[in-house]
Amino acid sequence: MCITEVKQNSNHNNNGDGVVKSNANCNNGTVHDAFISLDRGDPKMYYMYWKNVDDKCSVTIKASDLMSYFADHDEGGVFYQLPEFSKAVHRIHNVVGNAVTKGRYIIGGTGSSQLFTVTLAALASRINSCNQIKNKRRIPVVCAQPYYSCYEEALEEEKSEIYQWRGDANKFNEEGPYIEVVTTPNNPDGRLREAVVKKKGGVVICDLAYYWPQYTPITAPADYDVMLFTLSKATGHAGSRVGWAIVKDKEIALRMIKLMSLVTIGTCHEGQLRATTILDFVSDNYEQHLPNGKLVVEHQEGFFEFSHRVLAERWKRLRAVVNRCGIFKLPDYSPEICTFMNKSTPPNPAYAWMELKTGEDAEKVMNKLKIRTRAGPRFGVSSKYVRVSMMESDETFNQFLERLSTLQD
Amino acid sequence: MCITEVKQNSNHNNNGDGVVKSNANCNNGTVHDAFISLDRGDPKMYYMYWKNVDDKCSVTIKASDLMSYFADHDEGGVFYQLPEFSKAVHRIHNVVGNAVTKGRYIIGGTGSSQLFTVTLAALASRINSCNQIKNKRRIPVVCAQPYYSCYEEALEEEKSEIYQWRGDANKFNEEGPYIEVVTTPNNPDGRLREAVVKKKGGVVICDLAYYWPQYTPITAPADYDVMLFTLSKATGHAGSRVGWAIVKDKEIALRMIKLMSLVTIGTCHEGQLRATTILDFVSDNYEQHLPNGKLVVEHQEGFFEFSHRVLAERWKRLRAVVNRCGIFKLPDYSPEICTFMNKSTPPNPAYAWMELKTGEDAEKVMNKLKIRTRAGPRFGVSSKYVRVSMMESDETFNQFLERLSTLQD
Repeated sequence: MCITEVKQNSNHNNNGDGVVKSNANCNNGTVHDAFISLDRGDPKMYYMYWKNVDDKCSVTIKASDLMSYFADHDEGGVFYQLPEFSKAVHRIHNVVGNAVTKGRYIIGGTGSSQLFTVTLAALASRINSCNQIKNKRRIPVVCAQPYYSCYEEALEEEKSEIYQWRGDANKFNEEGPYIEVVTTPNNPDGRLREAVVKKKGGVVICDLAYYWPQYTPITAPADYDVMLFTLSKATGHAGSRVGWAIVKDKEIALRMIKLMSLVTIGTCHEGQLRATTILDFVSDNYEQHLPNGKLVVEHQEGFFEFSHRVLAERWKRLRAVVNRCGIFKLPDYSPEICTFMNKSTPPNPAYAWMELKTGEDAEKVMNKLKIRTRAGPRFGVSSKYVRVSMMESDETFNQFLERLSTLQD
Repeated sequence: MCITEVKQNSNHNNNGDGVVKSNANCNNGTVHDAFISLDRGDPKMYYMYWKNVDDKCSVTIKASDLMSYFADHDEGGVFYQLPEFSKAVHRIHNVVGNAVTKGRYIIGGTGSSQLFTVTLAALASRINSCNQIKNKRRIPVVCAQPYYSCYEEALEEEKSEIYQWRGDANKFNEEGPYIEVVTTPNNPDGRLREAVVKKKGGVVICDLAYYWPQYTPITAPADYDVMLFTLSKATGHAGSRVGWAIVKDKEIALRMIKLMSLVTIGTCHEGQLRATTILDFVSDNYEQHLPNGKLVVEHQEGFFEFSHRVLAERWKRLRAVVNRCGIFKLPDYSPEICTFMNKSTPPNPAYAWMELKTGEDAEKVMNKLKIRTRAGPRFGVSSKYVRVSMMESDETFNQFLERLSTLQD
């Protein structure tokens, strides 16, 4: 999720619905004339689940609560971080089985976007100090294409003196240190990934925003040196701007905490408290029903089954429409056993990565249908591709399918 | 407030009290053997006020609240910002009369620390694009000494390619564009300030974190192109990490919003909601008692009178101890009519800027008393100075005076 056009963002209403109600391009105000936005990753589909448990999972903060800069006073703790937040993060990963957290540092950030640049800065400064580089060069940052559009946009705008966006990892063949970002499952195309450069002197940041059971089968706990997660895509609470890094190396963790203290003096404590409540609510729900660590399928529909069901249904419907129209094609994904769901399931990615079968400008085709999507070039690839969010509200998703259905081969 | 030593932060307990309860340097565990910390600007004195109104000013957030990235859907709004937050900021400045906000953009950040670098980046990139500089140089950033220690530390660590910390504004005599930071009242020394460079091509960022009636008489609404404020020092809610910029120029405002969207996709919505509640509570209290915009002194003690009274009493007691001991000297401040308090009052700065009368190492003197302070060199001046927080808990402040009293001339 990345927002670079301020004006685009303002044409947008508030109730989990992506339909633009007032739009300068829309003269008669009917829904069919208005653009619908599926270009961003705003996770509105989750609203339906959380609305049903509104009062069971609320947070009350009194006037004198959470006032200090300091939230954790234990030796070795992250000073700005509520200890219960760190515990909730360990716990949810244990319940889901999607990441190794034992003995690792949990470092919260203002979304995983902040942690992405803070991690790059910590790694780049360590690389420079380890190599005692006299004529400092900017450490190349690469990611295999198609790559998440905001990596490039954030780094180009940030203008760091110590690292630099260098694009597609497949084309990278320089000697010396570099940082490779591995997004798995990948945004935009939902594929599972591994590092591709594999050269001496490289370090990897693993962006696991979408490694949750609703999007992809969990096959093993992820175990990388630096892993990034975000509440936005885990539970759908994007407004909280809560992300976390799971970091193996103490020195890197301390550099990151120092950077967090200088850049924003940590993160919002109210957001941490909210995230703790939300994550613990999900964990509670499953721990009650997980004898021997296995999901018992008979219990009431929990958060991940709800989300998995909604996405699986949407993917089924989208594939039917796409096949009928014959204009676009979608990636195929193989089912695997999900250790959390305890069954075989295909991936149901958060985005549909749609490729035009013939013709060169997929965005133009979508624009004609008044569907806003994100075009291939922003992900480092051809304009034959667009990324479409699968996480919008029911109303927006239904309109998307309706409009797409009007396409004829 | 700035935290650069991770280990320092962990020796700290949680109840608004700066006394270290467990400390490796403290063998017998008595309070007098433990270090007390007055080096940071954690605004703990405000806890006493807010504790009394805990339930009158609380916030409840349900499971489905504040989920979207988008909080403001109006054309021209800041997409990530609750409209009620922007209104609360306009309102508090109108009530207090400390800043012009009419027709200005209110841009929230994760504390004013984030807004500081975001503003620098927006100004520097505009300067570069206006001047069509081919061989880009890093725009110098200066501030008259003694300057807030975190400006230098954050910029040195951030390693931007487009701006660069260049220290004391008084020594700056280069031609060409530059950015001057004007902190008024100043951190660390409480002085009112204006820009000192005044050359062609310069732009000013005004840090007004302490321009509130508890710290200094409000003499007129501040009216600068870019002004920064923070909830931490306005009401004492440091953990919320809520700051705001008041920006005159549309292009700068849009650049800042774009940067905010790329760096952290805005700010935590829970923190914004909390800040709104806190600011509106203070405004409510005064608007009820302000016929014709004047403060009626008979009404129940409001937030600013409480804070002003506590700081004024502390300054009186500190001056008595300092005069008696004869080792240090403190700055003198002249009283002025405060338009908000409707009376003449001297400034009661958030920090005591203490200068050793003889000798060179003020921090060493304080360390012998087991008082942690922040030394002059971090503010760009001699080690004869230390900065001491006046905003700690009662208990810590009393111990500070007790220990200081043991000094003999």
